[in-house]
Amino acid sequence: MPSTIALSSSSFYSLSTPSTTSSSCSQRVPKAAAFSAKERDTFPLGLTKTHQRFPRRRSMVRSAVSIEKETPEAQRPDTFLRESSSSSSVRARFEKMIRDAQDEVCRAIEVADGGAQFKEDVWSRPGGGGGISRVLQDGAVWEKAGVNVSVVYGVMPPEAYRAAKSASADHKPGPVPFFAAGISSVLHPKNPFAPTLHFNYRYFETDAPQDAPGAPRQWWFGGGTDLTPAYIFEEDVRHFHSVQKGACDKFDPTFYPRFKKWCDDYFYIKHRGERRGLGGIFFDDLNDYDQEMLLSFATECANSVIPAYIPIIEKRKDTPFTEKHKAWQQLRRGRYVEFNLVYDRGTTFGLKTGGRIESILVSLPLTSRWEYDHKPEEGSEEWKLLDACINPKEWI
Amino acid sequence: MPSTIALSSSSFYSLSTPSTTSSSCSQRVPKAAAFSAKERDTFPLGLTKTHQRFPRRRSMVRSAVSIEKETPEAQRPDTFLRESSSSSSVRARFEKMIRDAQDEVCRAIEVADGGAQFKEDVWSRPGGGGGISRVLQDGAVWEKAGVNVSVVYGVMPPEAYRAAKSASADHKPGPVPFFAAGISSVLHPKNPFAPTLHFNYRYFETDAPQDAPGAPRQWWFGGGTDLTPAYIFEEDVRHFHSVQKGACDKFDPTFYPRFKKWCDDYFYIKHRGERRGLGGIFFDDLNDYDQEMLLSFATECANSVIPAYIPIIEKRKDTPFTEKHKAWQQLRRGRYVEFNLVYDRGTTFGLKTGGRIESILVSLPLTSRWEYDHKPEEGSEEWKLLDACINPKEWI
Repeated sequence: MPSTIALSSSSFYSLSTPSTTSSSCSQRVPKAAAFSAKERDTFPLGLTKTHQRFPRRRSMVRSAVSIEKETPEAQRPDTFLRESSSSSSVRARFEKMIRDAQDEVCRAIEVADGGAQFKEDVWSRPGGGGGISRVLQDGAVWEKAGVNVSVVYGVMPPEAYRAAKSASADHKPGPVPFFAAGISSVLHPKNPFAPTLHFNYRYFETDAPQDAPGAPRQWWFGGGTDLTPAYIFEEDVRHFHSVQKGACDKFDPTFYPRFKKWCDDYFYIKHRGERRGLGGIFFDDLNDYDQEMLLSFATECANSVIPAYIPIIEKRKDTPFTEKHKAWQQLRRGRYVEFNLVYDRGTTFGLKTGGRIESILVSLPLTSRWEYDHKPEEGSEEWKLLDACINPKEWI
Repeated sequence: MPSTIALSSSSFYSLSTPSTTSSSCSQRVPKAAAFSAKERDTFPLGLTKTHQRFPRRRSMVRSAVSIEKETPEAQRPDTFLRESSSSSSVRARFEKMIRDAQDEVCRAIEVADGGAQFKEDVWSRPGGGGGISRVLQDGAVWEKAGVNVSVVYGVMPPEAYRAAKSASADHKPGPVPFFAAGISSVLHPKNPFAPTLHFNYRYFETDAPQDAPGAPRQWWFGGGTDLTPAYIFEEDVRHFHSVQKGACDKFDPTFYPRFKKWCDDYFYIKHRGERRGLGGIFFDDLNDYDQEMLLSFATECANSVIPAYIPIIEKRKDTPFTEKHKAWQQLRRGRYVEFNLVYDRGTTFGLKTGGRIESILVSLPLTSRWEYDHKPEEGSEEWKLLDACINPKEWI
C-alpha cells in the first residue's frame, strides 16, 4: 500500500474539464500579454480584413504546466493512451470506465430529456491524449448538459515533485511527466425545482523525474458528485446523499462522513460565506488504499450518478413554476458561475494552462443573473436554501 | 518630481470596487476553510433554526492585506478621511473630486433613463474610510448601473515596500500603512445596440514603513474609461475614443496612444484570446509627472465620462432589436463576467480580502449567457465585433 505523499494532485493537474483539480498561483502566469511590434504585424488590425475564415487569436499564455493545443478529430479513437499494449493497466481500465460512464450518462439524459441529442466533439493532442466533449443544449428538460472525458499527458515542474518525500531537500530533480484521465459533467435543468448535478472522477499518475529514475511513481484518485438545487425538497436531498453513502459504505464506512465534509468545504464560495449547493461527496489525493479497491470505488461512484440523479429529475422536471422561482434559480446560477470562475481549481487551472476552453467552460450555465444586494425574505423557501448553503446540514 | 518606483499599486490596493487594481496570489489566501468542531457548534446546522434574522455567515478569509468589515451608515458623511484639517491635501481634493463625479454621473444617468432612481448604500470602517454605493437596477434604459466611491485605509506587507528603491535589500521594514480613494462604475444598458461603459479613477498614497520613518512616502494615480458594445457603430466608437484623446491631449500628447494600448492589453481575456470590448484608456502607477497635473488629469478624465457616453446612449437606446441581437449581447455579457471574475485585479483582490461584496460585484451584469462553442457567422455584425476584440483597432 503506497504511503501518503505530500505531493498534491491539486497542484498540477488539468483535464480540460470543470473538474475539481488544480490550484494555481497567479505568479506562475505571465501578466496580460504585451505584444511586440513584430507580433502586432502578424495580426493586422481593422474590420476590413476578411481573408481569414475566423478572427485569428493570439497564442495562449504559457505557464509552468502547459498543455499542447488540441486537434479536432472526425472519429472517436478506441483509446487516447499512447502506450500500445496496456489494456490491463490501471490507466487503460480507468479510461474504459470513464468512457463507458460517459455513454451511459448521456444515454440516460437523452431518454429523460425525451428527444434532444448530445453534440459530440472529439480532439487529440500531438504528444498523446485527447478527449470527447458531449453537450446537449436547450433540451426539453436540460438547459445545458455537458459530459466530458479527457486524457492528458503533461509535465509538472520539479518543485512539485520535490515535495514528495522520496526526493531529498537538496537534490533538484528534473521535470516530472504525468498522466491524468477523468470524466467531468455538469447538468443544468430548466425547471427551477429540478437541481443541477456535477460529477467528476479522475485518476493521476506520475513517472519518476527524468534524472531520478529510482524515485517511485505516484498515483492517486480524486472526484465527487454534488447536487445544487435552487429549492430544497428534503426527500430529494436525502435520496441523493443516501445513494452517495451507499456507494461509499461498500468500501469503507469512514468514506461518506469524510467525503461529505470535504465536499462541503471544497464547494465554498469564500467571498459569499456560502456553499454553491447542498454537497454530496468529494475526495482528492486518494492513494492510501489498495489501487484496485480505489479503481472499484471510483467506478461505483460513477455508476451511482444515474440512480442518484435521474429519479429526482423525473419527479421535478414538470413542476409548475413562476417567474419569481426562475429568477431565484438564475441568481443561484450566478453563484455557480462565481464558484467555477473564482475558486474551482480545475477551471482556473485549465484557463491558465490552455486547456480546451469550450470544454472547460461548458460547466457554466446557459443563463445566469446578478441582482445587487438581493436578500431573500426570512423563512421563505429561498431563505431556507441559502441557510443550508451557509450552514451545511447532515441529510441522513 | 518623484522618481518612478518599483512598488506597484497593482499589488496591494482595493477599493471594494470593480476597479483595475490589485493582483493577488492564491497562496496568500488560506485554502477552503475547514472548521473545527467548536466552530461548527457555534453555527448550528439545520433548517428549523429561525432565531436569527438572516443566515449567519462564517467570517471572511484573511489574507496579507485585509480590510476591516464595513458598518452601514444612515447618512453620507462630509468626508471619509480620518485626518481632521486636510481640505487642501491631495487626498481631500481627490475625495471631493470623485464624490462630485459620482453625483454628476448619477444625475446624468437618471435623466437619460427617464425616471428610475439610484439606490444608495453608505458604509464606514472602524479605522477610517468608507464608501457610497449607488445602484440603479431595471431602469428604462439601463439594466444595471453602479457608481461607487470608496476610501480605504490599509496596511501592506513589508515585502511590497522593500521593492521600492528607498529600502535597502537587507533591511526589512515593518508593515506600510496606505491610503486609497477611488470612483468606479459599470453601466450595463438593456438595448443590445447601446454599449456598456466602465470607468474607474483612483489615488494611492503610502506612509513610510513604521520602523523606517526616514523612507519617502509614495503616491500614484490610476484609472481609465472603456467601452464594451455588443455591436460596432464606428461613429460611436470614434466619438468615444476622440473624447478620451481630447482629455489626454490637454496634458500630454503621448498619453492617449500609451493609455489606449495599455487599455487593450489590460482588458484581455487570456483564455479566449480576445478583449472584453473596444477599449478606451487605462493607466496605473502614474507618478512621474507633477502631482497637481495628475490630479487635474484624473479630474478631466472623470469629467469626460458624460460627454463620451451619454450621446451614444441617446442615439442607441431605442433602436429596435430582435431576440438574436439580445442573445449576442448576453453572450458578450458572459465575457464581461469572465474578465471580471478571472482577471480583473480589483475584483479578484476585493473578493479575497473581504471588501464589500455587493459593491465589488455590482460590476456584473444583471443577466448573462454561455452557449457551448458559439461561433458567429463570418462577415456578420457579431463576427465584426469579435474580430475587433481579437485584433484591437486604431479608431481615430
